Amino acid sequence: MNSERETAALPLRRARVTGGFWADYQRLVLDRVIPYQWEALNDRVPGADKSGFVANFEIAAGLREGAHYGCVFQDSDGAKWLEAVAYALTVRPDPALEQTADRLISLICAAQQPDGYLNTYYIINGLDKRFTNLRDHHELYCFGHMLEAAVAYYHATGKRALLDATIRYADCIDREIGPEAGKLHGYPGHEVAEMALIRLYEVTGDEKHLRLARYFIDQRGQSPLYFEEEGRRNGERFYWEHQHFRYQYYQAGRPVRAQRDAEGHAVRFAYLLSGVADVARVTGDEGLLKTAWALWDSATRRRMYITGAIGSSHVGESFTFDYDLPNDTVYGETCAAIGLVFAARRMLQLSPRADVADVMERALYNGVISGISLDGTSFFYVNPLEVVPEACELDEGKRHVRPRRQKWFGCACCPPNLARLLAGLGAYLVTEREDAAYVHLYADAELALRLNGRPLTVRMESGLPWRGDVRLTVTEGGAEGALMLRVPGWCPGWTLSVNGQAADAPVSDGYLCLRRAWRAGDTVALALDMPVTLMAARPEVREDAGKVAVTRGPLVYCLEEQDNGPQLHRICLPMNAEFAECAVPGLPVSGLTAMGLRESGAWASDALYAPVRDTGAAPCRLTFVPYFAWANRDPGEMAVWVRKA
Amino acid sequence: MNSERETAALPLRRARVTGGFWADYQRLVLDRVIPYQWEALNDRVPGADKSGFVANFEIAAGLREGAHYGCVFQDSDGAKWLEAVAYALTVRPDPALEQTADRLISLICAAQQPDGYLNTYYIINGLDKRFTNLRDHHELYCFGHMLEAAVAYYHATGKRALLDATIRYADCIDREIGPEAGKLHGYPGHEVAEMALIRLYEVTGDEKHLRLARYFIDQRGQSPLYFEEEGRRNGERFYWEHQHFRYQYYQAGRPVRAQRDAEGHAVRFAYLLSGVADVARVTGDEGLLKTAWALWDSATRRRMYITGAIGSSHVGESFTFDYDLPNDTVYGETCAAIGLVFAARRMLQLSPRADVADVMERALYNGVISGISLDGTSFFYVNPLEVVPEACELDEGKRHVRPRRQKWFGCACCPPNLARLLAGLGAYLVTEREDAAYVHLYADAELALRLNGRPLTVRMESGLPWRGDVRLTVTEGGAEGALMLRVPGWCPGWTLSVNGQAADAPVSDGYLCLRRAWRAGDTVALALDMPVTLMAARPEVREDAGKVAVTRGPLVYCLEEQDNGPQLHRICLPMNAEFAECAVPGLPVSGLTAMGLRESGAWASDALYAPVRDTGAAPCRLTFVPYFAWANRDPGEMAVWVRKA
Repeated sequence: MNSERETAALPLRRARVTGGFWADYQRLVLDRVIPYQWEALNDRVPGADKSGFVANFEIAAGLREGAHYGCVFQDSDGAKWLEAVAYALTVRPDPALEQTADRLISLICAAQQPDGYLNTYYIINGLDKRFTNLRDHHELYCFGHMLEAAVAYYHATGKRALLDATIRYADCIDREIGPEAGKLHGYPGHEVAEMALIRLYEVTGDEKHLRLARYFIDQRGQSPLYFEEEGRRNGERFYWEHQHFRYQYYQAGRPVRAQRDAEGHAVRFAYLLSGVADVARVTGDEGLLKTAWALWDSATRRRMYITGAIGSSHVGESFTFDYDLPNDTVYGETCAAIGLVFAARRMLQLSPRADVADVMERALYNGVISGISLDGTSFFYVNPLEVVPEACELDEGKRHVRPRRQKWFGCACCPPNLARLLAGLGAYLVTEREDAAYVHLYADAELALRLNGRPLTVRMESGLPWRGDVRLTVTEGGAEGALMLRVPGWCPGWTLSVNGQAADAPVSDGYLCLRRAWRAGDTVALALDMPVTLMAARPEVREDAGKVAVTRGPLVYCLEEQDNGPQLHRICLPMNAEFAECAVPGLPVSGLTAMGLRESGAWASDALYAPVRDTGAAPCRLTFVPYFAWANRDPGEMAVWVRKA
Repeated sequence: MNSERETAALPLRRARVTGGFWADYQRLVLDRVIPYQWEALNDRVPGADKSGFVANFEIAAGLREGAHYGCVFQDSDGAKWLEAVAYALTVRPDPALEQTADRLISLICAAQQPDGYLNTYYIINGLDKRFTNLRDHHELYCFGHMLEAAVAYYHATGKRALLDATIRYADCIDREIGPEAGKLHGYPGHEVAEMALIRLYEVTGDEKHLRLARYFIDQRGQSPLYFEEEGRRNGERFYWEHQHFRYQYYQAGRPVRAQRDAEGHAVRFAYLLSGVADVARVTGDEGLLKTAWALWDSATRRRMYITGAIGSSHVGESFTFDYDLPNDTVYGETCAAIGLVFAARRMLQLSPRADVADVMERALYNGVISGISLDGTSFFYVNPLEVVPEACELDEGKRHVRPRRQKWFGCACCPPNLARLLAGLGAYLVTEREDAAYVHLYADAELALRLNGRPLTVRMESGLPWRGDVRLTVTEGGAEGALMLRVPGWCPGWTLSVNGQAADAPVSDGYLCLRRAWRAGDTVALALDMPVTLMAARPEVREDAGKVAVTRGPLVYCLEEQDNGPQLHRICLPMNAEFAECAVPGLPVSGLTAMGLRESGAWASDALYAPVRDTGAAPCRLTFVPYFAWANRDPGEMAVWVRKA
């Protein structure tokens, strides 16, 4: 049923990050984020918002008395943590952590009801109310995250306890929700179960799981609208009644197959797209494939920031319209950029295309990891491209933007989402099909590939994002087939050598195709040109008119007040500026420096407006820092887009 | 007690607008707005939001049954209308209109309670609750507007019925509110009574009225905070609890004399400043004078748009911080620009300064009359400087901005406020002191001045805002003293002649000083150079960096999509552009045309971002229309600030 172009993601156990940039982030996750979050989930972090996650399960399991605490989707925080732990155990075995996870899984299983139901909010508050508010109570969202955790933990450890529990939970849901008469014709108010069910299906092979995922997608937005009827039953005021997006907030304003634009809540959108791509891949459904690509194009070609951030408005954390990309009022939730990475990997499984991998890489190196501080202890929800701290405080329309990362959140979706993505990053490097392996991201990693049914083990090394060199060494050969090496969109030229000899290779869909019988010791060296490049946005993008962004390789850079003084809007950049790498005081990563111009602050009158005159601009040395590293010093102004001189 | 620099405003009956630009607006108000609003106040406009104003008074007077309808400040809408009628009757006698007004006044008086109380909301809903929510229930605001109407009507007609009623109402308030033990130590939640009481004081000479005005200012923001205590008594949640401005929304976060910045709700601020200036003028209080000038400077030198709009944020319709002037998310309420004109006239009474009159003129010709359509039938609440209609619909952060004026509003403060300002505009032309008359605004008008105790009648003519010519003809002479003619800030040069002879005159505070014994037939001709001028904002203004605004004389111009096509952000203006006047299709006013550049829309790739390259810009003919005339055709994009080529 799959087309020739489809590829499978190389799973984490066969794609181990071993060093370099991403290994540093994984260490941060393993050493800091996972332990910290475990303490948070247990309400043991002094001064942090209470989580209630573990306590809720203890209460649901009858081990203690108490009320459900926190958001209705509190279960998902711990599920995401558990998923991160699964990846962490694959990256670096840790018996103590595994024991902790096993105990947590026992607790979760102890809370499961005889019919398989497993959601602490309703177990504690009354099972009679379950499945009565699919729109806003995140019941199926928590279900999806629990599935993801279960499958990941099963892959990591071979242990089935949580997997079996969630299979029973899926059976429970399948008995109550679906197209058949007598069932609720509902679907998730926040998507994630769709892609999670496909992960489950790929373990169980049980058509029921595929059918449920497909149903969730096909039923979504059908008329009569389930969410509207449910709201009527509940006698509830519809929160988004007066916003233009209304039910498109949930991507439920019309049937999914009739949707062509990225609309509504950006995280929900990215998760839906991931599920659509998964179901389209597994079923080969042409209509869904078309929908998936239309939604992908809308999000990434018309509604995405240069950092890979999505969601132009904080109202509904939502998309707005084509080319509307305000840099200062943007939402750009960390989870939405993460969702875009999820979607990208799935689009690559549909069709390996270097431009899709470009988006995945853009989001990862910029809008995703900007969400976490360099020391792994604080987090951004919102990832703006222009910040004036005073405005965040004194302009209520920018209050959602913060010039400083926070320790934790009452609604703590982003930190554990970062943890699970970064710990599991190996699974985003490569997809493979029968006779070819597509390398989408370059990193230090051990890859256990299979080509034409035979194993091929490759050691990959790369200096990215700081150097454009890539080196692959076959450590275990004997397979024949193609290694497809991505030529990134940012790369204007490259040199290739195989076993030390300059080589040439055809480029297909943006990948260099190296097809041969591989032997142990074979080496491929790819040197990607990675000049500093000034990027422009399409002419339609109002907010970036007359401006450029400094980039090098996958990294977007920005100006910070700490290095360049206040009033960054007075800075202009000549188009022939010469850049050099530089150390940045107070930051552990290197920056770029160039001579720019700072417009004079001189102003003859005491009036606010005066006839324009050329007051000149003084040359000034500018320092650009990688966007992901901003806000790791004292708060100050920041700008990605800089005026052209 | 007054200083030498203080001047009195020439009242409307001595400053009659007779023709030209402002007479057209007055005709619009007299012929369209006042009759339309009377119908609206009587709930007789099909399809328009109900007002309830007249009905509320009928119910309060016991003439019919019913509940109070509309906002808690509904009384003020009709009071503003009545004030506008008073000015209209001065401008153009109209017995039928006067009879209508007299009948309305009888109705209002019939609703007055035996102790003088006069507010329909509490008369209908329970007098026991009166004065229990000064913070948010606009009781003293309605009182202030009723005072303004009463004084204006008394000046216009000599009839005292409403004046006497409001004097009794003032007595009633004075018995209940004030610094003495046993009284409520409150003050208005929305200012206007302060300046209204001074107007009353100037009629009555009763120190009680001055004392109450001064008390309202001095008590405001004192600790313990009255609004906080009142809120506690009412057990109410404080709406602005989590906004940074909190009680500064009402300019009550600290004592008025301790305030140095324009903060909080912009209309409230401008009304407070007007009251502060009035009390400072009447009492000569040095501390208040200093406060008035500090607040004026903050508002106009650091927080005002080039159109005279104030209020950078729609949250709280409020100021934000110095030089924070976003053009697309601005509030710029019509009433706030009107309030700035009120304040400016009062600052001019403190000290005639041409730069203050510049602000008054800037607001009048731009941010005030942009609030009303050219046909007088529809109104803006919000006056943006940059509009993309799609964003107003699809970006929830810009939903307050409208690309099209509305017919009327549920909260209809702006239309009657426009009516009373425009009908009474004559009173803003001139202020005078013993030996000098300061002409602040040039228009076709008859001025009945007094210099050194003797009358001097002058006919003023001017082609402004289209031509910079001004001509004064003495029609009744015999007085000696100075005519002080403002040299506008926008005027780089001028020629002056007296009785046909080129003349020279010293300039003092921005006014040409023409001192002589004036005889009938004397003429003064002033030709003000009025070139098209490209204006820049101070370098601190982030949102206008690299941009200019096209102005000519007092008018700010803008680009509209109708004339210049969509995507106005792609348009650049060379600094040496040559402008010519031009007709504008579909508009009854002339525009300015120049050659500009439109950046190419060409884009090689299908990606959203690509390496910058010079794709060139094509020369294009640009049409600029006066800002006040925007949005009088089909909705489209609009921009005041244009990128420098």
